[in-house]
Amino acid sequence: MDRLTIVKVGGKIVEEEDSLLQLLEEFSKIEGYKLLVHGGGRSATQLCERLNIPTQMVDGRRITCLQTLEVATMVYGGLVNKNIVAKLQSLGVDSIGLTGADMDIIRAEKRPIKNGIDYGYVGDVVFVDDRKISELVRKNMILVLAPLTHDGKGSLLNTNADSIAATTAKKLSKLFKVRLIYCFEKKGVLKDENDEDSVIRKINKITFKQLKENKIITGGMIPKLENAFESVEAGVQSVIIARADLLNSEERTEIMLEFSHSRLPIE
Amino acid sequence: MDRLTIVKVGGKIVEEEDSLLQLLEEFSKIEGYKLLVHGGGRSATQLCERLNIPTQMVDGRRITCLQTLEVATMVYGGLVNKNIVAKLQSLGVDSIGLTGADMDIIRAEKRPIKNGIDYGYVGDVVFVDDRKISELVRKNMILVLAPLTHDGKGSLLNTNADSIAATTAKKLSKLFKVRLIYCFEKKGVLKDENDEDSVIRKINKITFKQLKENKIITGGMIPKLENAFESVEAGVQSVIIARADLLNSEERTEIMLEFSHSRLPIE
Repeated sequence: MDRLTIVKVGGKIVEEEDSLLQLLEEFSKIEGYKLLVHGGGRSATQLCERLNIPTQMVDGRRITCLQTLEVATMVYGGLVNKNIVAKLQSLGVDSIGLTGADMDIIRAEKRPIKNGIDYGYVGDVVFVDDRKISELVRKNMILVLAPLTHDGKGSLLNTNADSIAATTAKKLSKLFKVRLIYCFEKKGVLKDENDEDSVIRKINKITFKQLKENKIITGGMIPKLENAFESVEAGVQSVIIARADLLNSEERTEIMLEFSHSRLPIE
Repeated sequence: MDRLTIVKVGGKIVEEEDSLLQLLEEFSKIEGYKLLVHGGGRSATQLCERLNIPTQMVDGRRITCLQTLEVATMVYGGLVNKNIVAKLQSLGVDSIGLTGADMDIIRAEKRPIKNGIDYGYVGDVVFVDDRKISELVRKNMILVLAPLTHDGKGSLLNTNADSIAATTAKKLSKLFKVRLIYCFEKKGVLKDENDEDSVIRKINKITFKQLKENKIITGGMIPKLENAFESVEAGVQSVIIARADLLNSEERTEIMLEFSHSRLPIE
């Protein structure tokens, strides 16, 4: 099977000209098939502020009223997405910016009201069209996916970029050897959070357990890694947590089901 | 050659839910290959107003500063484009929303300063990739083109939707029998502007000259028709001016080089 690298990058990096260009240059150097999923929440929040639309977050997720959905559609589907595409083109990387509605590649359903929380126009992915995505990928067309899906009934839905990256990676793992890279503000998972040189290069289920027991991995990193294990258990070859400017370096954390025999469990 | 219908629709129709749905239903009934080019200037102007960005127009063209370009990218590339795509999907029409930067399909150059007027980030089309467009079209993928192009150097450019429709139609006329339909607020070119039932159904160069001489066609309709003749002279089979809700009716004006022999010049 061919290798496919899926890179998910958050708002901060793609919203600033300098860091975006640096990211895209690193991204363009990745060998083999690749695909980019981006966020853009900070810009959306800023535009909401300028338009006097209140931003409401619950557990880090945006409550999306109709006005907020319009802002998300403008910022994610327009501003951020098309800027990335134009910049990639200038680097000689032929790319296409898509939402889930385009070519009907990612369909979602509006999240039901749960525990009294109505997220509004937020979608949970129910279908990824691996055939159509794979066809474009194999033509060396670089897909740039915005965190927007649609319900098939005419409405766009705001959808978490991490979820889009993970579900797309899982679905495409039937057709490719998929590596899923999450861009992170640090070099990876650190043994000592104050020491950028203490990157834990490889984590599997056994060492993850040990690292949790020894309180080396704590807090918000635990669910992040649990999600990563969910992806590798669903067929993704490895999940990588890396700093955006070091996408092609070995200084990063790789999460996999099993280590290859030639390497030590914890380097 | 296969037939391809290119429909250009302005801001007013695509920006209101009811008229948009009606247009898309009519559009979806067009037989054969088809493609949609949309505007969105009114929404862009409204968003500029809400964001206190002054709107400057010269001869109906928007002066596009960097902030205005961001608004255009959000409104044309995001809001309007993705809404159309989501609505088409709900009608069972598989579509994809693109700017000129996507797949590098339409490249433009920044309009040079002329007669002291600097239009800013406004692009004049220099290249349309007919091969890539045709490949998608022949897969029955409906392209929805936003009035945005790119310069190949990383910048998007605001580009008039009529120009995108016309240049795309001309370029694709090498590969398809192209009909170019401009949606219009009236049923077509009228003999009597107060009588919607006085549509001139067919115009060729000779009758156009007569209609001008007899002052039946005057004002802003003259350059519109001159542009239409430029397209048919460049290979487009016919240019049609029609009301958005009557795309598939015979009540409309068709501009062509020569009338087919079986029909009278002016019906």
